[in-house]
Amino acid sequence: MSNLNFSFNGTSTSATKFEGKTRQFNLVIDEPEALGGNDSAANPVEYLLAGYAGCLNVVYNLVAQEIGIKINQLDISINGDINPEKFLGISDKERAGFQSLNVFIEIETNGTHEQEQQLIATAKDRCPVNDNLANPTPIQYLITQPISKN
Amino acid sequence: MSNLNFSFNGTSTSATKFEGKTRQFNLVIDEPEALGGNDSAANPVEYLLAGYAGCLNVVYNLVAQEIGIKINQLDISINGDINPEKFLGISDKERAGFQSLNVFIEIETNGTHEQEQQLIATAKDRCPVNDNLANPTPIQYLITQPISKN
Repeated sequence: MSNLNFSFNGTSTSATKFEGKTRQFNLVIDEPEALGGNDSAANPVEYLLAGYAGCLNVVYNLVAQEIGIKINQLDISINGDINPEKFLGISDKERAGFQSLNVFIEIETNGTHEQEQQLIATAKDRCPVNDNLANPTPIQYLITQPISKN
Repeated sequence: MSNLNFSFNGTSTSATKFEGKTRQFNLVIDEPEALGGNDSAANPVEYLLAGYAGCLNVVYNLVAQEIGIKINQLDISINGDINPEKFLGISDKERAGFQSLNVFIEIETNGTHEQEQQLIATAKDRCPVNDNLANPTPIQYLITQPISKN
């Protein structure tokens, strides 16, 4: 199968607010006041967690369908801690991002315990966001600046 | 400094749609029709890209302020390719998530070329989302199922 391309493009509208678009969807990101923003939208790492939860939902449902069981209820909570010292330039001791993530899944299906165990064992590793968080991803940066600079 | 905790909690409302909350913000994730959804919202990996762009915006502005320059314009575009075979259970050859990410940054400041180079060299590594994508993150899963199961 050929690759699928996904993209997001936008503009900084303040030191914390970013307004962008992916296909027909406008997404706005801001920071809470404690992090210098106006708290007009969820913050960057909250978007990351939302994408992760949404991804697990899709994969759980896809695998359940393959196994032939129906998911009656699926609640997902994800949280994690960030030490802000590297982000704020205070210290290099801790990593910049989430130190670890905790994923709580509450699931109820019409399948047997064995079918549910099969679902749980299979789904996570097929989730794209899980892969990009659990494993390293190569990132290329291309930075453009105006030509006429002293 | 003490850690900051971030969380997102929600419920599956269809095989592709997930509705959740982070603090006072409701976020909805769906898939395009080509991926089995109703295309009612951005999809999981698009949320990931949005969080990444929003995070780079915050860190670029933070570091610019430290250097003492003003960002006049900052546009960020991020894209990447996913091979859907692992996600769809067709093959294990490719990874599930983005194979790599391309970050395009167009920036204009009132600083010198040297100040801008300093900004560019510093900002990326202090971005939490960049860290969690570029480097592995430990993830703990806790899955709860109803007690009375055959």
